[in-house]
Amino acid sequence: MVFGIVGLGLIGGSLARSIQFHSEHTVWGMDIDETAIEQARMTQAIDDVLTEENLPQCDVVLVALYPQAAVDYILSHIDCFKPGTLVIDCCGVKRFVCSRLFPAFVGKQSIFIGGHPMAGRERSGFAYAQDDLFENASMILTPQEDTDTEILRQVKELFLSIGFGRVRFSTPLEHDEMIAFTSQLAHIVSSAYVKTPLAGKHKGFSAGSFRDMTRVARLNETMWTELFLKNDDLLLTQTQHLIDQLTEYRDALRDRDEERLKAILREGREIKESLED
Amino acid sequence: MVFGIVGLGLIGGSLARSIQFHSEHTVWGMDIDETAIEQARMTQAIDDVLTEENLPQCDVVLVALYPQAAVDYILSHIDCFKPGTLVIDCCGVKRFVCSRLFPAFVGKQSIFIGGHPMAGRERSGFAYAQDDLFENASMILTPQEDTDTEILRQVKELFLSIGFGRVRFSTPLEHDEMIAFTSQLAHIVSSAYVKTPLAGKHKGFSAGSFRDMTRVARLNETMWTELFLKNDDLLLTQTQHLIDQLTEYRDALRDRDEERLKAILREGREIKESLED
Repeated sequence: MVFGIVGLGLIGGSLARSIQFHSEHTVWGMDIDETAIEQARMTQAIDDVLTEENLPQCDVVLVALYPQAAVDYILSHIDCFKPGTLVIDCCGVKRFVCSRLFPAFVGKQSIFIGGHPMAGRERSGFAYAQDDLFENASMILTPQEDTDTEILRQVKELFLSIGFGRVRFSTPLEHDEMIAFTSQLAHIVSSAYVKTPLAGKHKGFSAGSFRDMTRVARLNETMWTELFLKNDDLLLTQTQHLIDQLTEYRDALRDRDEERLKAILREGREIKESLED
Repeated sequence: MVFGIVGLGLIGGSLARSIQFHSEHTVWGMDIDETAIEQARMTQAIDDVLTEENLPQCDVVLVALYPQAAVDYILSHIDCFKPGTLVIDCCGVKRFVCSRLFPAFVGKQSIFIGGHPMAGRERSGFAYAQDDLFENASMILTPQEDTDTEILRQVKELFLSIGFGRVRFSTPLEHDEMIAFTSQLAHIVSSAYVKTPLAGKHKGFSAGSFRDMTRVARLNETMWTELFLKNDDLLLTQTQHLIDQLTEYRDALRDRDEERLKAILREGREIKESLED
C-alpha cells in the first residue's frame, strides 16, 4: 500500500517512521517546511515526496496538521483522492473536524475517518519523531455511522500492523469529552502548577511526583490553544469540576477536618486502584 | 558503624537495604510488625533486631515512623542514645518534628538532625522496599542552627555513601513550604483528578499525561492525612494558589480569549523550561 502523510512534525514523522519500521508499505510525505522533508528523506522515513501529482495514487492519506489546517487541506483536496482511499486526520479534537468533513465526504468514493493517535512528547517537529512513539498507544478512530464494518475491521488491523498498541472506536463527542479529561485538563493542570515563585527553588526538594505533575507544562502553546478552543465547552466543564474537587480538599484542610480529609483521600485512592485492573 | 532503623516499612526497609547494598555497616532494625522484622532478617536487610538493649550501641539511629510516632519514640528513648549518636527522623514534615525535638536535645550528648528522604512508591510496607529507592534522590536535612559544620559534612558524606543522589540542607520552615508545593499538593491534585465519572472509561482514551497526573492518587490516606494536617497552613496556601491559577485558565476558556490562553500557556512552558537547566 501507499501511505501519504501530510505534515511531517512529531506525529506525522513518527507515523512515517513507525510504518517503515513495521511494514513494507510505501510512504510519501510532505510538509510546508523543506527541512522536515529533507530530514524525512535522508532518514528514510519517507520513500518520496508527496505531491499534488502523486496524491491520487495513495491508498491511505494521514493528515497530521493542526485542526483548522487539517480540515482546510482535506476539503481542498477532497476530489484528489482515488476511489476507496482512506483519509484519516490526526487531530486531538474530533467534533470540530468530523462535523466539517463528514458532510463533505457524502457521495464521495473516498472514505474519511476521524483519527487521534494517543501519544506525544514535550517536543515538536520531525527531529523528535520516533518509530516507537505509538508502541502501547491507542489509536482512536471516529468513523461515520454508516462506514462499512468490514472497512473498520481492516482499518483497525492496519493501525495495529503499523505499531499501535490498540485501536478504540468512538463517537466524536465521546472522544472530545474523554480527551478533555484525560489529556487537555492534564496540560492545564501542569501549566498552572508551575506558576509559583517556589518553582524555581524545587531542586533538592522534589521527587517523582513533582516531575510527573509538571511534565507536560512544556507544551506547544499555539497547538494547545487551538485544541482547547475547539473543545472549550467540554474542557470548561472538566476544569470547573477539578476546581470544585480541589476546593473540597482545601475546605477540609482549612477546617482541619481529619476524618473528612482521610475520607476524600481514601475515595481517590480507591478510584485510582479501580482504574488499574 | 552500627545503624539502628526504627520502622521497617517502605522507607525504613529501603534505607536498610540501601545501607547493606552500598556499605559494610551493620544494620539493626525493629518494627511493631513481627512479619516485617522476619522479612527484613530473611532478606539480610537487617543483620539483627534492634532492641532496647542494643539501642545504646548504635552510632546512627534512623527513625522511619509517622510524624507523631517518630517524635514519641525519640522523646521516650532520648536518654538511651550513646554520646555522639546521630538521631535522624524520616518524616515528610519538619516544623512539627523539629519544634518538639530540637529543645529536647539541648544539653544531650547525642545529636538530632531532622531528615526527609525524598523518594517513595505508591506502595507501603517492607515487602516493597528497594535497595535503589534513593538512587538520584535527595536527602533533605534540617539540623539545629548550632550543629557543628564538621558533623554536617560527615552526615552529608554518610548519606551520599549509602546511596542518595544528593543532600540538601534546609530550615524546617523552608522544607515544609517547598514540600507543600512539590509533594503534598501533587498528591492532592492526583487524588482530586480521578474524581469524575469519566475516570472509569479512560482506557483507550488516555496516554502518558493521564497516567502521570494520577499516579500518586494511590496513596496511604492515613499517613498523608497526618502529613497534611501537620503542614496545613502552608499546604492550604499552596492549594489555594493552584485553585487561583486554574481559575485563570477557566476564565480564559470561558471567555474564549485566545490571546490570553496562549499567553498563560506560554508562561507555564517558559517556567517549566527554566526548571530544566
